[in-house]
Amino acid sequence: MNLITVNKALEVVVNNSENFGNEEVDFLNASGRILKENIYADRDFPPFDRVSMDGIAIAEEAFNKGQRSFKIEGIQAAGGPQLTLQNVSNCMEAMTGAVLPKNSNVVIQYELLTIENGIATINLEAVKSFQNIHLKGTDKKQGDLLVKENTLISAAEIGVFATVGKTVAKVAKQPKVMIVSTGNELVEVAENPADYQIRRSNVFTMVSLLEKLHIKAETLHILDDKEILLSEIESLLINYDVLIFSGAVSKGKFDFIPEVLNELGVKKLFHQVKQRPGKPFWFGKKNKKTIFAFPGNPVSTFVNCLKYFYPWYYKSVGLNFENKQRAILSEDFYFKPELTYFLQVKLNQIEGELFATPISGKGSGDLANLVDADAFLELPDNRSNFTKGEVFPMLPYRNF
Amino acid sequence: MNLITVNKALEVVVNNSENFGNEEVDFLNASGRILKENIYADRDFPPFDRVSMDGIAIAEEAFNKGQRSFKIEGIQAAGGPQLTLQNVSNCMEAMTGAVLPKNSNVVIQYELLTIENGIATINLEAVKSFQNIHLKGTDKKQGDLLVKENTLISAAEIGVFATVGKTVAKVAKQPKVMIVSTGNELVEVAENPADYQIRRSNVFTMVSLLEKLHIKAETLHILDDKEILLSEIESLLINYDVLIFSGAVSKGKFDFIPEVLNELGVKKLFHQVKQRPGKPFWFGKKNKKTIFAFPGNPVSTFVNCLKYFYPWYYKSVGLNFENKQRAILSEDFYFKPELTYFLQVKLNQIEGELFATPISGKGSGDLANLVDADAFLELPDNRSNFTKGEVFPMLPYRNF
Repeated sequence: MNLITVNKALEVVVNNSENFGNEEVDFLNASGRILKENIYADRDFPPFDRVSMDGIAIAEEAFNKGQRSFKIEGIQAAGGPQLTLQNVSNCMEAMTGAVLPKNSNVVIQYELLTIENGIATINLEAVKSFQNIHLKGTDKKQGDLLVKENTLISAAEIGVFATVGKTVAKVAKQPKVMIVSTGNELVEVAENPADYQIRRSNVFTMVSLLEKLHIKAETLHILDDKEILLSEIESLLINYDVLIFSGAVSKGKFDFIPEVLNELGVKKLFHQVKQRPGKPFWFGKKNKKTIFAFPGNPVSTFVNCLKYFYPWYYKSVGLNFENKQRAILSEDFYFKPELTYFLQVKLNQIEGELFATPISGKGSGDLANLVDADAFLELPDNRSNFTKGEVFPMLPYRNF
Repeated sequence: MNLITVNKALEVVVNNSENFGNEEVDFLNASGRILKENIYADRDFPPFDRVSMDGIAIAEEAFNKGQRSFKIEGIQAAGGPQLTLQNVSNCMEAMTGAVLPKNSNVVIQYELLTIENGIATINLEAVKSFQNIHLKGTDKKQGDLLVKENTLISAAEIGVFATVGKTVAKVAKQPKVMIVSTGNELVEVAENPADYQIRRSNVFTMVSLLEKLHIKAETLHILDDKEILLSEIESLLINYDVLIFSGAVSKGKFDFIPEVLNELGVKKLFHQVKQRPGKPFWFGKKNKKTIFAFPGNPVSTFVNCLKYFYPWYYKSVGLNFENKQRAILSEDFYFKPELTYFLQVKLNQIEGELFATPISGKGSGDLANLVDADAFLELPDNRSNFTKGEVFPMLPYRNF
């Protein structure tokens, strides 16, 4: 067989990633995007000696001389400028989040005090310098690197952007993606198919898979007519960064996609991969435009999108991604053909270990079967017997 | 100590979930939502005996009589009505996705044929009935349950909706959530804080955490003034299903939230949980309104949102959720206080096992530390020594 291996195909795909440049977005819309700048501390954190318990601030010196009762001079509230303890034998009430009052260096929480007639009495034998005080700059110093370029932004990073006053974040621009279905047997979702027709579904499945990457893809259907395909795809190649096709890449009389792409000057980088499902995958480039032509079976399209498009996207936007996800096969499995097999599995996390149980599907046409599974387990092409307890790479598509 | 345990607190929170009813959304916008109807097969899948390889369709009988060369009668394309093989000694070219032509019951792929002058010759010793034919109804029968009510919708389900013609899906309505910060030390993200001020960040972190649940939360800041709090919160209780507060729930002079909520008729279900960080958490209800008042430290708010709000939401929308996620502690750890400790950890997946490495933080105020970690490991309150290799529940907050 003249097929490229899965590993080689993935290498070609990833090596043909593209940089789509950067853009600025409101920091609150940056979740799920890839950061394209370093974020530094704009000041020390905390930016002042910060009271971390509600109570009173005193001078340690007075306590160490044996004093236990302190006249309350005032209240240091959070959000107020720093007050000064005028008499170091007195105390100042001080609230969580407030600046530590000048001349004080210990905070005693209310739970360890009694307060009567403006006098706080401490029920303690000893205190420690700076207890209940979060000292200026102990978390981070001004200028410290807080978030590195090329980080996938999550809620934690959003909080840091807010803290340092980044109202806009520089992120990787998303590719403009068009997902095209072909196949004269396909009708729209709202239509009633004739006996020999089915509804379009792959393009919507892929829209949803790309939505997880925060890419808003568009969709289109083109009939299996070579002239129409030529003219439509010619204009798509101008207007989009990525074209994803579903169908018409195999050996059928109306599988025009490879020849149409060829005639339009798209360079084929490979066609047909040593895998099941998803074997007839065609991949090519025209200058900076990238074309993924997946076979039309629902499961083929699905697994190829996860296996090839996702890593291509991660590399394109600069995310340092390597799929380290592995799962433990929970029962023996047999698959004879000399192809990498993407086995549909249900995942179970048990005490920190991830187990994968095969879901018996009816082949690559069985979309409903995807609903019962959580992931694909990638079984290598050089063997037929896979044993319970062995660990294999996997492609999960659900969150938990 | 008079504190409620983490398990008991979670039980109270989850038992106070609320049903917000259902709504219909365009099927393509349903990803991440909870399905509120069963989805059945509207027809058999496949809906017809479907050709699954490009090639020729023949009658097995003719082949078994020794015939190997077949005159091509016509082409059965995908998307065309079923044709009939007029002479069972002939063949019909047939494409993937097409209906199997009448009077044929075997498909031979092009790879095993030679075609010359309109005659296809088969290079095979034997054939099997219905080979390369995906028979009607073998995946699913009309009326079969495809997706169960209360499923979290992912790309796989979107594909099924399309296939069965569900242009709109019935999903759980989302709660209307307002996230309120308090604290006079807080200024807006775009402002330059004075020495004793910091920028608001917790509310934005929580907006981002709720966005992962497909909830679009709103935010508001209210000053630490009891009268203002009373009047503002009174109207929030009318207009929102859920109020989440950050700050003003501890023992400070300006920690008005518990008394204000009490005066507005919100019933306290607990205040203070045996945990660190996040101990001063206050939880209450007023009729169908649910109030989460989290402490103001960034890490406290973050972990409480994951630990309490997430399961409350899942239960509210009917998702059968139990956090089974566990990780293996990768080094010894010591924590003395008799509190459940939410340890910040970095996760590493190695050969199907998930390891958690502690990230040494500077306490609950250290937001930047969340950036370096991936999850919280939940260490129980009844011990101080935690040993490398032990398995504990965890709350992850990144996708990989």
